[in-house]
Parts: sequence; structure tokens; C-alpha cells
Amino acid sequence: MALKVVALAGGVGGAKLVHGLAAALPPEDLTVIVNTGDDFDHLGLRVCPDLDTVVYTLAGVANRRTGWGRDGETWSFLETTATLGGPTWFRLGDRDVALHVLRTQRLREAVPLSEVTREVGLALGIRARVLPMTDGEVRTVVVTDRGEMAFQEYFVQRACDPIVRGFRFSGADRARPAPGVLEALRAADLVVLCPSNPWVSIDPILAVHEIRSTAEGRTVVAVSPFIAGKAIKGPAAKMARELAVDPTPQGMGAHYAGLLHGLVYDQADPDVGLDLQKAGLRSLRTRTLMRSDRDRRRLAEEVLTFGAAIAQVEAS
Amino acid sequence: MALKVVALAGGVGGAKLVHGLAAALPPEDLTVIVNTGDDFDHLGLRVCPDLDTVVYTLAGVANRRTGWGRDGETWSFLETTATLGGPTWFRLGDRDVALHVLRTQRLREAVPLSEVTREVGLALGIRARVLPMTDGEVRTVVVTDRGEMAFQEYFVQRACDPIVRGFRFSGADRARPAPGVLEALRAADLVVLCPSNPWVSIDPILAVHEIRSTAEGRTVVAVSPFIAGKAIKGPAAKMARELAVDPTPQGMGAHYAGLLHGLVYDQADPDVGLDLQKAGLRSLRTRTLMRSDRDRRRLAEEVLTFGAAIAQVEAS
Repeated sequence: MALKVVALAGGVGGAKLVHGLAAALPPEDLTVIVNTGDDFDHLGLRVCPDLDTVVYTLAGVANRRTGWGRDGETWSFLETTATLGGPTWFRLGDRDVALHVLRTQRLREAVPLSEVTREVGLALGIRARVLPMTDGEVRTVVVTDRGEMAFQEYFVQRACDPIVRGFRFSGADRARPAPGVLEALRAADLVVLCPSNPWVSIDPILAVHEIRSTAEGRTVVAVSPFIAGKAIKGPAAKMARELAVDPTPQGMGAHYAGLLHGLVYDQADPDVGLDLQKAGLRSLRTRTLMRSDRDRRRLAEEVLTFGAAIAQVEAS
Repeated sequence: MALKVVALAGGVGGAKLVHGLAAALPPEDLTVIVNTGDDFDHLGLRVCPDLDTVVYTLAGVANRRTGWGRDGETWSFLETTATLGGPTWFRLGDRDVALHVLRTQRLREAVPLSEVTREVGLALGIRARVLPMTDGEVRTVVVTDRGEMAFQEYFVQRACDPIVRGFRFSGADRARPAPGVLEALRAADLVVLCPSNPWVSIDPILAVHEIRSTAEGRTVVAVSPFIAGKAIKGPAAKMARELAVDPTPQGMGAHYAGLLHGLVYDQADPDVGLDLQKAGLRSLRTRTLMRSDRDRRRLAEEVLTFGAAIAQVEAS
């Protein structure tokens, strides 16, 4: 396929599909735009959870068991931090810290996050282009029954316990897309919304206005992160309940209304192709669970074939 | 002994004697003033080599084999830094990095170095008071045949290879002693200059004018870092040669002239008690090599007995 693809991704699920897309496509045809709304400063270090998950996954050094952090990780830093009375609620591994320290240092030297990410990707042998959604600061704020809180407070410190009422993406109104983002979107034959959490992984990216408006001009397909109403990982299903959104293909179609042309959903869900068609959406019902590298690539290829067909329809 | 003691210390040799003094004295009677002239910023982290050597040694977590860093250290951070193309000339262990990260974070919160050092000492169970010489920035600059360079560049990057012409302590003229330093010196019955490098460990401390002038009013004894013309560790003997200073008891006596009342030197040196006496110095010839904790404590006790005798002489 000589399809130019832009993938929008957040954490684990998104990173898996991105890994499959990178296996299926020539590197020059894939650009990944990653959520930075979860980024935060911890112990004076800039931590970019989603960027790092994507980068570690593409580099083949992600921890497949935990879904975050690196494989072969060691924990002396965290142990010592505990001994010294420092905060340990956010689990920083020794190898992970090296990236955070180097990145923080480069950012302090006024090197933009997109350039730092390029350097890291180069060092780790990643060939596809990975871009943060912005070099500015957009921060996901979770609006809950216990007040507003930063994403990591909600996600890690409070273990997603508060009841979610909504989200704000602080700084999104002022944020410019990172260099290369709009160019990649304009050149894209297909935009893929990866099976990441729609509210806290994909929506923050789309909250950068120029990204949303430029994506609206392209062929866009999403892979639903829900399988039979459940999320493989993370709080998406709990959030759906609390936001009174159906964790179904139709729910996802409605969530991305105005942007989406096609939806890929799992074979464990009932066939709702006709419902989706009524809502103007093409759909593909298949196995979306990715347990192995082979699963990742197979799903990626199915998504590309599905998307290419829509793009041709659109283009004709 | 109910002697109030202030020890001035730099790296390894100094830390060993400080450890012995801490074993020999009630904690409330010992204050250690540590050189910060070697401190530097690496990867955006504030590294304080001498403070950390003293703190790690007192806490019993120093690496006795290398003379720097911590025992039980792991190296994932450094390995990953190398993979990411970052600098590895300064060897930061994973446990060590935790301290640097926490300290850097506290300093950025405008907490003074002396307070951060107090917090670290408390967390590591150190009972004696350890103070940086200043909360300001004094930086040792090495004047060499290849130009001036920061201490760590000379010491680590260039492995002490350039020929030394002298030293500058940048910022010393403006630096105030850290809180507690002058009070401890004024209350001290005895000031001990530990067997640290005279030029780059002790002199930077004395370059803070109020420290030198206050110490001049006290009973001061030094332990020579030279044994039969050699230093146990580090570049002191090479520096002595290049500065045309005799690495002898008499050479040390002359170096600290105007400040010193007594000198402790090694039994491997010839007995120069009479020469030192002519220079107005009392002296103690003993074994100064510290291989074990027992050595450290024995030397400390000998230094204290020797110093106490001088203090009484002075006081009478």
C-alpha cells in the first residue's frame, strides 16, 4: 500500500496499533501524533507518558506485562527516593528516569518537545515519525465529583476512583500543533484514531483546533477501544458509564461525529453495521484485541485496507 | 571528651576522618563543613560530590571500593543515557541520581542547600551536623597549562592530566557561610582540617572570608593528606609537584600558615617535629592511613586528644 497515514494515539492500546501500522507501512508513510495532555512535571522532570509508551513500543523496549515503562527496568532510583523521603506514587524506573532527565535538560535548553522526541526516536532506532500533538502545554484536567484535578492525580494518585463529570484541556485554545503535524495531516490519505481512551487520549489531540479542523478534511477511521462494552486497559469503560456514554460502536460513532467516516469494532460486539450506516459510517467488525505482534500487524493491515477503500470512495 | 569540634572536609580522605570523629564524639559536638567548590550541574541535576561523599560515608552507604558513590549501586540510568546519546563521562549511579534529582528539585523550590543537606542527613539517619560551606555558589576553577577549566572538567573529563598552575574560587568573595557555619566555628574548641586535598578541598572552604577569619580565632589542627610524599587517592601529590610545594609535613605547615596550631602526619614520614616546632607548630606523628572503621576512629581519637591538649595550652 502506498497510503500516507497519520495515526492519533494515546497510551497502550494506541501504541499497539501504531506498532502494527509501523510494521505494515514504509516508515516515510506513517506519522504518529501523540497526546501530551497527560504530561506532567514530577520531581522536576518532564514526564510524557503517552509519548514514551509509543516510543518504547515502536523501539521494542516497552514492558509488555505492565503496559507502561520499559522492559528490563530496575528500581534503585525509586527505592532510594523512598529512603530519602521523596514521593513514590509515580513509579519511575531507572531506565525511564534517564529519558526524563535528558528530555528535561533539552527542554530547559529551549529545544522543543517535537525535536527532543525526534532525537530520542533516532537514538532508539525508530523510523516512523512520532510527533507530540503540540510543543506547547496542554494539560488534561479531570472534572470529577470531588472537584477538578490534574490527570495524573486522577489516574495514578487516586487510581481513577473519583466519578468523572467531564474534561478540560487547559491551554488547548492557545496551543499550536507541533511542526509537521498539519503538513502530515494535509498529506494524509487516511487518519486513524487508534484504540486509545477517547476522552483523555484522542480528545486532547483534537482539542488543538487546527488539528481537528485539518483532520476534518481527511478520511478518518477510528478503532473502538471497547470490546463488548469493556476496555482492555484503563478507565475508559468506567468513564463511559459516568459520562452516560454507551461503550458501544454506536457510542464511539456518536462521540467522533463530524470527523469520522469509518469505525472498526470488535467481533465480540453485536453486528451494528446497519445502525452505523444510518449514522453515515462505514464499519468493519473484526478481532480488535491485540495480544501479539502478529495481532497488531493484522489489525493494522485490516484498518489500512478498510480505510483505503473509504478514501477511494471519498476521492471518487 | 566534651570537646566541641568543627571538621573541614572534602572528599574521600576527609570523609573517612569525619566518620571516625562521628564515632568518637557525641553527635551534638560535631559539625562538619564541607567543600562545595566541586559542585556542578550535570544533565540539569545539581551534583555535590564532596557533600555526598561525606553524607554517604556517615550514613554507612558509601562505596568503599571506588571511594565515590554508593554501595549496592546499579547502572541502568547510565546505560540508558548512553543508548539515548547522552553524556556518560560523569558516572551517575541509579541510587545517586535519586539524591541529585530530589536535591535539584528542592533547590529549584528555593530551599537552600544547607537545608536540603539537613533533610537528606535526617532521612539517612546521620546525627552529626553536616553543612555545606555556603548556600551560595563558589566554583573551583583550575588554572592549567591548557587554560582555566571547571573542576570536574579537570578532574573527571581530563583525568587530572593538565599541569596545574593554580586555582581560583569563583564567587568566593561574595559567598556567605551557610547558616550555622560561623556559630559552630565560634563555639568550637577545636577545628580539624581533614586529610583532604589542601588546594581543591580545604582551600575553597577557607576562601569564604568569614570562615577563614573566624577559624583563625580558634585552635586549628590539620591532618596531612600526604604519606611519604604521596596521596592515598586523588591528584594532591601531582598538584604539589606542579605547584612546587613539598608534599611533606613542613609543606603542609607552610600551606596553612597563619591558621594552624598543630599538624598530624604519618609515621612513614621522617620525624620533623623539631622543624615544625620552629615554625610554631605542635605535631603528632602517627599512622594516618585509614583502612578500616577502627583505623578511622583511632586516628580521630588521637587527633582529638592532640587537639585538646593544644586547646588547653592555648586557653591557659
